[in-house]
Amino acid sequence: MSSPAPRTINVAVVGAGAIGRGWASLCAAHGWSTALFDIDSRAIDSALGEVRRRVGALVKLKRADTAVAERGLSHLRVGRSQLQACHDADWVIEAVTEDLALKQRLFENLDRVAPPDAILSSCSSGLAMTAIGARCRDQTRLVVAHPLNPPELIPLVEVVPGKFTSSATVETIREWLRELGRIPVVLKREVPGNVVGRIAAAVYRECIDLVLTGVIDVDDIDRAVSLGPSLGWASAGPHLTYHLGAGEAGLGAFLQHLLQSFEVWWGSLAAWTKLEPEQVRALTALVERTYGNQLERISESRDRRLASILQALESARKH
Amino acid sequence: MSSPAPRTINVAVVGAGAIGRGWASLCAAHGWSTALFDIDSRAIDSALGEVRRRVGALVKLKRADTAVAERGLSHLRVGRSQLQACHDADWVIEAVTEDLALKQRLFENLDRVAPPDAILSSCSSGLAMTAIGARCRDQTRLVVAHPLNPPELIPLVEVVPGKFTSSATVETIREWLRELGRIPVVLKREVPGNVVGRIAAAVYRECIDLVLTGVIDVDDIDRAVSLGPSLGWASAGPHLTYHLGAGEAGLGAFLQHLLQSFEVWWGSLAAWTKLEPEQVRALTALVERTYGNQLERISESRDRRLASILQALESARKH
Repeated sequence: MSSPAPRTINVAVVGAGAIGRGWASLCAAHGWSTALFDIDSRAIDSALGEVRRRVGALVKLKRADTAVAERGLSHLRVGRSQLQACHDADWVIEAVTEDLALKQRLFENLDRVAPPDAILSSCSSGLAMTAIGARCRDQTRLVVAHPLNPPELIPLVEVVPGKFTSSATVETIREWLRELGRIPVVLKREVPGNVVGRIAAAVYRECIDLVLTGVIDVDDIDRAVSLGPSLGWASAGPHLTYHLGAGEAGLGAFLQHLLQSFEVWWGSLAAWTKLEPEQVRALTALVERTYGNQLERISESRDRRLASILQALESARKH
Repeated sequence: MSSPAPRTINVAVVGAGAIGRGWASLCAAHGWSTALFDIDSRAIDSALGEVRRRVGALVKLKRADTAVAERGLSHLRVGRSQLQACHDADWVIEAVTEDLALKQRLFENLDRVAPPDAILSSCSSGLAMTAIGARCRDQTRLVVAHPLNPPELIPLVEVVPGKFTSSATVETIREWLRELGRIPVVLKREVPGNVVGRIAAAVYRECIDLVLTGVIDVDDIDRAVSLGPSLGWASAGPHLTYHLGAGEAGLGAFLQHLLQSFEVWWGSLAAWTKLEPEQVRALTALVERTYGNQLERISESRDRRLASILQALESARKH
């Protein structure tokens, strides 16, 4: 079986945790040459096997072409050092723990070992590229490209330029992301948590609060979010949803009325900014009691649902 | 073409706005006998046509069976008075504007005109049944059953018992909702906005804030929410998502780390509880400029995406 060979980008993924493995799986599934590096050599050993498994799952879920994925896997390799992983990279993807000092040290080094025209992106879910790259000589080629988990399935990638990021860097990273089947959304300025982290934080705080204050059970609030607002938003984002809800009267008139309810609710939402250790323990116990330990089986079902939804959205768009 | 005839419930929908029309469409599409009433007789005239159109759309989207829907439409009628609409109802669905005094007066009257064993439900998105039904003689048969928009497509219905609602009422309403292909989720106590309104309010506040403070454009934040967190949550609710993200380390250890980011973001989220008139005007202008006036076309695309996602989830669950 032969497939057309698209342009191949040399990628180096630095950090072989869940997100790094996801990026490597996505790039390999698209036939790109991918080097994976982690300072923890044991993490690397298990990572390679998992990337192969995840690429296989993408093929099975019809999210990747068999021949292209085989070519990508044949080019998948482990770097023995940052230098060896990055020296011929077009794109270096940082995917280490969310820790500013750690990321700053790493970028300082990547700036030295990567080719001068390589783009260096950070997976940070909420730190600013300007801060992460503060010690780099060339800050024009740095950009946040934050995927969601699992990165090989959820299409959104938040692209957040730092103060010194060039528009050429933003354009190139958007192009590469599109080639990987991702949907890049560019933020106009840096903000803690980007936009996804902020939305997730707002939802999770309320979901924690509703459970800990005894309004609803863990599985019921999950089901409510899944089969209610998320389905609505997956079909039309929040602003469009209310624009459609307003109908012919127009959004202005509709909002006047809607805000009467919303202002009451905004005043009554959870507003705490910290969880006490005993609350973390209580929440953990409730969630573990609800979902137990069959993580692999549940995770596979989740990925199957995700892949089905993606396929459904694609076919609905073609209509 | 013949179809098995399921148990038929006599439904009276009081209020022929968007939500009332949705309920009537859903009931008719399931072959149930439905009476529609509104004090505004012009609303009723346009409502009947729209219910027929929506039932047709459900058949076309493969969310309803042709023969069953035809039977339902043949039983669809308009009540000339509340009494005439409700006198033989098993289930009276209140779907009027979100206004406590209005709903209280209406329930006081419904309590008189409906058969003594009928269940009376309110579509309230956030008011308490206990308050709405305060003037009713029999409060054991009152319950909030709040759908999302459009009610005939989004499966979630929040069921919120009031202080005096009987468990028999809750059980019957859950059974009926399941027969209508809905997924009822029962709250353990009344809270402003139920759970969906609270989640929606938390998300919408942040989406408004991000647009008004120039972080991201209207269509980009909508796209980000649609193709990022909503897809994740549609496949696994927030608590399950982090449970899966934690992996073998366990949720407790994972949360310790996650909370370092989340506590920063919680502290930085929008916290206002009121929009100023000039902010409403600015928001309205931005949304209208982004999406324009082609509401019907956009709404049809949204419904097509929704129906495709529902079908995808159903087939993934059968797997």
